[in-house]
Amino acid sequence: MINDKLPKIWYGGDYNPEQWEADTWAEDDRLFKLAGIDVATINVFSWALSQPSEDEYDFAWLDETIERLHKNGVGICLATSTGAHPAWMAKKYPEVTRVDYNGRKRKFGGRHNSCPNSPVYRKYSARIADKLAERYKDHPALLIWHVSNEYGGYCYCDNCAEAFRVWLRKRYGSIDALNKAWNTRFWGHTFYEWDEIVPPNALSEEWDGNRTNFQGISIDYRRFQSESLLDCYRLEYDAIKKHTPDVPVTTNLMGFYPELDYFEWAKHMDVVSWDNYPSLDTPVSLTAMTHDLMRGLKQGQPFMLMEQTPSQQNWQPYNSLKRPGVMRLWSYQAVARGADTVMFFQLRRSIGACEKYHGAVIEHVGHEHTRVFRESAELGRELRRLGDRLLDSRPNARVALVYDWENRWATDLTSGPTVALKYQNEVHKYYDALFKLGIQADMIGVETDLSGYDIVIAPVLYMVKQGYAKRIEKFVEAGGTFVTTFFSGIVNENDLVTVGGYPGELRKVLGIWAEEIDALFPGATNQVVMNGSNGALNGTYECGLLCDLIHSEGAEVLASYGSDFYKGMPALTVNKFGQGEAWYVATSPDERFMVDFMSKLCADKGIRPLANVPSGVEAAERVKGDKSFLFLLNHNAEDSKVELEPNAGGVDLLTGKEASGTVVVPARGVLIIEREGAVL
Amino acid sequence: MINDKLPKIWYGGDYNPEQWEADTWAEDDRLFKLAGIDVATINVFSWALSQPSEDEYDFAWLDETIERLHKNGVGICLATSTGAHPAWMAKKYPEVTRVDYNGRKRKFGGRHNSCPNSPVYRKYSARIADKLAERYKDHPALLIWHVSNEYGGYCYCDNCAEAFRVWLRKRYGSIDALNKAWNTRFWGHTFYEWDEIVPPNALSEEWDGNRTNFQGISIDYRRFQSESLLDCYRLEYDAIKKHTPDVPVTTNLMGFYPELDYFEWAKHMDVVSWDNYPSLDTPVSLTAMTHDLMRGLKQGQPFMLMEQTPSQQNWQPYNSLKRPGVMRLWSYQAVARGADTVMFFQLRRSIGACEKYHGAVIEHVGHEHTRVFRESAELGRELRRLGDRLLDSRPNARVALVYDWENRWATDLTSGPTVALKYQNEVHKYYDALFKLGIQADMIGVETDLSGYDIVIAPVLYMVKQGYAKRIEKFVEAGGTFVTTFFSGIVNENDLVTVGGYPGELRKVLGIWAEEIDALFPGATNQVVMNGSNGALNGTYECGLLCDLIHSEGAEVLASYGSDFYKGMPALTVNKFGQGEAWYVATSPDERFMVDFMSKLCADKGIRPLANVPSGVEAAERVKGDKSFLFLLNHNAEDSKVELEPNAGGVDLLTGKEASGTVVVPARGVLIIEREGAVL
Amino acid sequence: MINDKLPKIWYGGDYNPEQWEADTWAEDDRLFKLAGIDVATINVFSWALSQPSEDEYDFAWLDETIERLHKNGVGICLATSTGAHPAWMAKKYPEVTRVDYNGRKRKFGGRHNSCPNSPVYRKYSARIADKLAERYKDHPALLIWHVSNEYGGYCYCDNCAEAFRVWLRKRYGSIDALNKAWNTRFWGHTFYEWDEIVPPNALSEEWDGNRTNFQGISIDYRRFQSESLLDCYRLEYDAIKKHTPDVPVTTNLMGFYPELDYFEWAKHMDVVSWDNYPSLDTPVSLTAMTHDLMRGLKQGQPFMLMEQTPSQQNWQPYNSLKRPGVMRLWSYQAVARGADTVMFFQLRRSIGACEKYHGAVIEHVGHEHTRVFRESAELGRELRRLGDRLLDSRPNARVALVYDWENRWATDLTSGPTVALKYQNEVHKYYDALFKLGIQADMIGVETDLSGYDIVIAPVLYMVKQGYAKRIEKFVEAGGTFVTTFFSGIVNENDLVTVGGYPGELRKVLGIWAEEIDALFPGATNQVVMNGSNGALNGTYECGLLCDLIHSEGAEVLASYGSDFYKGMPALTVNKFGQGEAWYVATSPDERFMVDFMSKLCADKGIRPLANVPSGVEAAERVKGDKSFLFLLNHNAEDSKVELEPNAGGVDLLTGKEASGTVVVPARGVLIIEREGAVL
Repeated sequence: MINDKLPKIWYGGDYNPEQWEADTWAEDDRLFKLAGIDVATINVFSWALSQPSEDEYDFAWLDETIERLHKNGVGICLATSTGAHPAWMAKKYPEVTRVDYNGRKRKFGGRHNSCPNSPVYRKYSARIADKLAERYKDHPALLIWHVSNEYGGYCYCDNCAEAFRVWLRKRYGSIDALNKAWNTRFWGHTFYEWDEIVPPNALSEEWDGNRTNFQGISIDYRRFQSESLLDCYRLEYDAIKKHTPDVPVTTNLMGFYPELDYFEWAKHMDVVSWDNYPSLDTPVSLTAMTHDLMRGLKQGQPFMLMEQTPSQQNWQPYNSLKRPGVMRLWSYQAVARGADTVMFFQLRRSIGACEKYHGAVIEHVGHEHTRVFRESAELGRELRRLGDRLLDSRPNARVALVYDWENRWATDLTSGPTVALKYQNEVHKYYDALFKLGIQADMIGVETDLSGYDIVIAPVLYMVKQGYAKRIEKFVEAGGTFVTTFFSGIVNENDLVTVGGYPGELRKVLGIWAEEIDALFPGATNQVVMNGSNGALNGTYECGLLCDLIHSEGAEVLASYGSDFYKGMPALTVNKFGQGEAWYVATSPDERFMVDFMSKLCADKGIRPLANVPSGVEAAERVKGDKSFLFLLNHNAEDSKVELEPNAGGVDLLTGKEASGTVVVPARGVLIIEREGAVL
Repeated sequence: MINDKLPKIWYGGDYNPEQWEADTWAEDDRLFKLAGIDVATINVFSWALSQPSEDEYDFAWLDETIERLHKNGVGICLATSTGAHPAWMAKKYPEVTRVDYNGRKRKFGGRHNSCPNSPVYRKYSARIADKLAERYKDHPALLIWHVSNEYGGYCYCDNCAEAFRVWLRKRYGSIDALNKAWNTRFWGHTFYEWDEIVPPNALSEEWDGNRTNFQGISIDYRRFQSESLLDCYRLEYDAIKKHTPDVPVTTNLMGFYPELDYFEWAKHMDVVSWDNYPSLDTPVSLTAMTHDLMRGLKQGQPFMLMEQTPSQQNWQPYNSLKRPGVMRLWSYQAVARGADTVMFFQLRRSIGACEKYHGAVIEHVGHEHTRVFRESAELGRELRRLGDRLLDSRPNARVALVYDWENRWATDLTSGPTVALKYQNEVHKYYDALFKLGIQADMIGVETDLSGYDIVIAPVLYMVKQGYAKRIEKFVEAGGTFVTTFFSGIVNENDLVTVGGYPGELRKVLGIWAEEIDALFPGATNQVVMNGSNGALNGTYECGLLCDLIHSEGAEVLASYGSDFYKGMPALTVNKFGQGEAWYVATSPDERFMVDFMSKLCADKGIRPLANVPSGVEAAERVKGDKSFLFLLNHNAEDSKVELEPNAGGVDLLTGKEASGTVVVPARGVLIIEREGAVL
Repeated sequence: MINDKLPKIWYGGDYNPEQWEADTWAEDDRLFKLAGIDVATINVFSWALSQPSEDEYDFAWLDETIERLHKNGVGICLATSTGAHPAWMAKKYPEVTRVDYNGRKRKFGGRHNSCPNSPVYRKYSARIADKLAERYKDHPALLIWHVSNEYGGYCYCDNCAEAFRVWLRKRYGSIDALNKAWNTRFWGHTFYEWDEIVPPNALSEEWDGNRTNFQGISIDYRRFQSESLLDCYRLEYDAIKKHTPDVPVTTNLMGFYPELDYFEWAKHMDVVSWDNYPSLDTPVSLTAMTHDLMRGLKQGQPFMLMEQTPSQQNWQPYNSLKRPGVMRLWSYQAVARGADTVMFFQLRRSIGACEKYHGAVIEHVGHEHTRVFRESAELGRELRRLGDRLLDSRPNARVALVYDWENRWATDLTSGPTVALKYQNEVHKYYDALFKLGIQADMIGVETDLSGYDIVIAPVLYMVKQGYAKRIEKFVEAGGTFVTTFFSGIVNENDLVTVGGYPGELRKVLGIWAEEIDALFPGATNQVVMNGSNGALNGTYECGLLCDLIHSEGAEVLASYGSDFYKGMPALTVNKFGQGEAWYVATSPDERFMVDFMSKLCADKGIRPLANVPSGVEAAERVKGDKSFLFLLNHNAEDSKVELEPNAGGVDLLTGKEASGTVVVPARGVLIIEREGAVL
């Protein structure tokens, strides 16, 4: 969809010519050509430059830049520049700067610095978006709009307090309903007037960022701030769409960034884009899962890899270089997972301020004779050769993993039973097992339709929103396999416990009752002891973190705890429900269990791996029409052999060679095997 | 004394029916009966509910609750609800919220949130106490008053600053006297006017909570804030006593909570009550010591166990379940140490806000078919069977350990010689040795009469208050054994050093001079080498933390350091003084030394263990009239054998069986052996 | 120079008689005589005492003190008392207290508490200095002025903001120049008016103390605050000099204290003085390096050891005692490195506030019968015997190590490539190798003349200031050996990258290009593999932290990396340039490399060790006229043998004995061997 004007995998990135003297620009043009750059994201941080005062706008520099790039064959990803307000605005209208979590009024500085409920910020950010759209609406180079930049951070100022009360009034209707939803009779918090409510931060209900006295207000404030920033985005979106209804609009997301509910955001984005910054020690399956989540935000629609570094970052503690080949490998990982662009931050390295040690296609040395440039240019050529083959292809997963931002907020904010619980980690444990098995999964939200899947896994589904339990029941009744874990089904969307026995609304489908929840100290373990053999599952596994003490209420008990006073109580159950089955994993087992468990579930459903991959080799597939593209990505520093499924051979798009049977994927190399029809 | 109306060990706990719909109440009634609940603490956090605005009070819900409980046979521990002020009050009178250590004005939120020197808070908290007392003074269910809740936290607002100056003027009389007491000529701090003095916090003299430039002002501020909160308590106390002079009044304390000087508080409480929240890894001897301290606040008078959890907590990092039997075991530990009530937080689990994962007798499932409920109900029946037998019985200790809050403040605030010194730990090392030996000890304050004891141990008696050295001398002269340690006798109550040689005023009774104090790095050790054998003490022990370099001035040197440049200097001395002796332990020795040392001292005084207890078994005794009750508490997960003293047998109150010679205490079990006369 | 009036190594220290009753003073006099004290630093913190209100001054106590000391033969180091402002001033003029890094307005308390840009503080601090100078200008006891105390800390108040803008306007001339210098087009920070600029702190551009979005403003703010405090010093200096142009003026510095650029400060000081507080675990070579830095501030001019503790400190985590002999040893270490005074904080221990556990010549016991006093008195006698022999002698180093405060700020503030880089550590690695080899080095600044040296080592010369590269080139051309390392030559003084290839302006002299910089995770290593043998350098060494990936552009490659994808790329190069050579150490190698490398370089230049010293023995030399004084300092707890250079014997000044060939330096002992002529 986004690639109509430039029907290939876009290749380029952030470009800030305004930071440079004019004499470098010609050199930029030359080097972009050499590197195969065909898209540049510009104007990301130029608000102060383009609007020198309240009533003055000057886009001459931008006109010139766009013109030059266009002449050089480079398309434009045009940012609206509102990711940081001008200094003059902060001076003239102090309301535009935020009040932070500690209640401190901020002064001018940094970025992510605008209060999302400041009328001044809203007015001027929408206005400059409007002016930009009006000015460049017909420019042939314009490929896409990039609103603001990496939205994030919360504000706790008086404007936000006022807006929060309006938001609450709308959500709850009456103060009584709010009191009930927040359980304010606890600790004598009954409110009588809306303006008694203040934002929850370190001056009121919270401390240490994620600790709170009242989960109700704290979750609502996160919803509210996520929506407030989304409102800012939407104001710009609407201003733009007036002028260019057909040009797609995006804003760059940040993967599992905790503060914004991206499933809500994605509803208002034409295409998802995101910035991928793994560290040397980030598990590759976590990067894969994040790509899949970004793809899942819009139900599989291809996304943009808006930013990655060609070499190194600057803001990590130890900014190691991407080893030779890794930039290419990780670029194809993005493509394999649904990206239709490969873009960098940035094209030329800045020379001052905090990102000058962030890698770029053009390094400080300024010429093309660098390892980084060579690798970039090679990839540019390769992507050009791929043409439009992969565009808009999509995976065809039969397994889905549920991720929900509000559930994350709730589990982060909960007081007890253990500080060691990290929702994302628990989701990743399941994802990682599927990844190791070479089985494709989708990351989905709680609003996503389940009917297309054979298996739906919702680890730590602590918060069960209205109607979701029913949807799960329907899914299982219709033959689906549902999996959830310990500490699920506990609360509703207001973080109020569903009384009558855990796992609350999920109890029926799961056929169990969780009587108690034991928290294990770090290093302490229990065991999951299988009652006989169940496919790949057998013997004894280690587990830890939390142990639910459960009773079967109809579910079959497949494994029991191996020690402690609840030795012999169920640790793994499955409940037949309609045509399907619902699994409960009462604790957090080890990696070996995860792989065996996923293996068994998939085998039961006849879901076969994309390929038989050794450790460190990733398999992913995109399908388009009657063609499928199997990506084999070797993250090892040595060549690896992969056994393809029988009759699953095809042609490697990158080399043009036949690939079937056992193929060798070179160290840090990639195969993209084009096949007729989806194989699985 | 408290149990006149309900002559048994009260059994119940916090109950918040106002958080629930009326339809749960009948079920509460039924379950309370099942569980043997006979007391409920209510109205703890209902200020906002009962006083919806400045001039409006509505106690209908409370009338109804009390009536219902009364009808159900449940007595009332009636809280005054002032532990958290209403939101409307914070809005209307911002002065009621605190200014925190970092100088930040707080907004509405949390609890412990009222400035103790706010005239508004004082007025309205006393007023609601008055109204409650007037309203319920004649209610037959009323057992005791519970003022506010877990007082704590400090405020640094302008009201506090003003009040602090008034307090200082009263304490010191003149600004010159204050300048001298605080040694303000150091760092040019001479004050000329009272209003030049500001509260010591992170904006002025302190940082990191317990670091200060001036110990004088910092200790005084702690005294002042402790007294300010006590004043708030006393205002409510007085308001209540006008109406119900004969109903006891308490407030729930928190063991070694550092911020309040509980010895001062206890003077104004009719009965001490406290909240006991050990973690899975809290040493049982530390819990025992804390019970003993709470008992010691009022010189042995039985106290109330006001709160404990039946199953788990929510606010610890890892909230493990109390293992089967442990709730009962720890309940009896409290009783063994002087509790005449066993009460929980809470009776029914809340469903919203931060304590919803705190255990309760009635769990979220809502019925009685849980392990926790069963254990609770069994204990309820057992306590009922015990009747009034144990009430008001008291221990009969011949050993006392001194603990002083002001000394703790002084040692916490001292700059040098080592950050590793923790006063409570050093006290606990001595307590733990006695505990292991099965020897009963009292925890006493510096105002407690010493004459009843054979041995008084005052570890790290850094601050020696006016007259205390003389009292120690008299105690020793009369034949007592006194023990103190390194870093003792250094300062007076203003934290001014007593010049002329450490240990200052204690030098005479100890017969030594401490010339220097060496601080050891973590992991570094020296040795305590015994000069020959002294009862249980012989050979070489390890020591660390601090090493005083002392000289005998008449004391006998029993051990010397084993290494470093002070090898051969005294490490352990004893000084004959009058009829008694005074010991100085110049360093912090290992556990083995502690046990041998306590063993020797007790043997010298003819103090025999309550029983010969193996590791993990606790012995404690309460005496009443001519009967003694020996508690044997087995904290091990296996049965343990205890050898009773010859002729020390009796009848186990819980089973009715004879117990003599070698008895078996079941795993996590309890024996309460009733005997004629105190045995020791 | 400072010692004209008292021609010997001054011996004394801080003395605060105003903290004591008059009856202790006679005892002070007696004890000072016993200890050989001949100088007392007084009036350090007496502002509030001497100026009780805005218009009132009372120096009677000071008159009396000076008179008494003078009569007792003790000279005066007269402080101006402005290290902490009076409480009345903070109350009357809140502007004098600072606003801290977190934007919090401070109240009265502590020290280092005055805003350096407060007109009130400036006025009254200069005024009291003026009054003191006028009053005591002719007093025969007056030896030196001591302005304020340990200047330090920054302020972020509105007065500072205003002054900062004035400072910036002066530095940059135009807002455009500033925008360019700070690269403000990054993140849309373009300024249009000066008053849009706010101080960079936790409310604007910075966080965590040393993290910033904009290095430009952050480095400038450090420059500005360092200068602001220096201005305060200079106002007092000028006020004093009006009255006593011939009496030297100093202020006590703090070694590597990060916040002030002491090279700038020293320009305005008649003599450098500093406070030396090593911990038990401070490497002795680090203390030596710090002394050398303090000596280097004024190009080798002897300095004052203004403060050290005779026994222990109070503010470290674990304040261990100085072992017997160590106080003397470390005093002579200072003298060996250029100190012409040995002074303590303090002469008598205070009894209240936070420094009461800081050691003193007169301890709390108050008499002379302590180890500390005995050691102090012995040293007093010894220093008296030494007379003026050593005064004004200076070392004669042929090796220089460059240290630059602004470079430290820049490396501390840089975002990437690694948080593990600590500039001072890297400098110390080189110093330590020279120290181990017994080779004397000077610590110099970037303005210091290089022509007197054979070898100049500038580790991590990240910031290359205008003209410095040229000066290095000239130094090398003329035959000098220059050494620098990884992460050098990157930025100019505005922290803007020198484009065109690292190491920027140093590329020519070094003959290499650094293409990339790899950051290693903690614990990760690479190897420096020598290509054949080069003097002491041969075989393989370990390295870590950062690895520059360099290419020779003419330099000889002496060693290569041993692993990773840049295995075989150069790790150590040397470039012939004119008559000299320039070395590049592309990574941070292990200690063994450092010793071998320094050994080789010195051997090449014919620089021989002062003596052949075993581990733990320090050698240093001071030269005066035709005499040299070789100090041998044994930091070991055992006697050590030192082999003197042939014909390098002389007479040990402390024992009067001949010393030649192999000499024994007693455990923690010192030899000062006087020889004719500098030996090396």
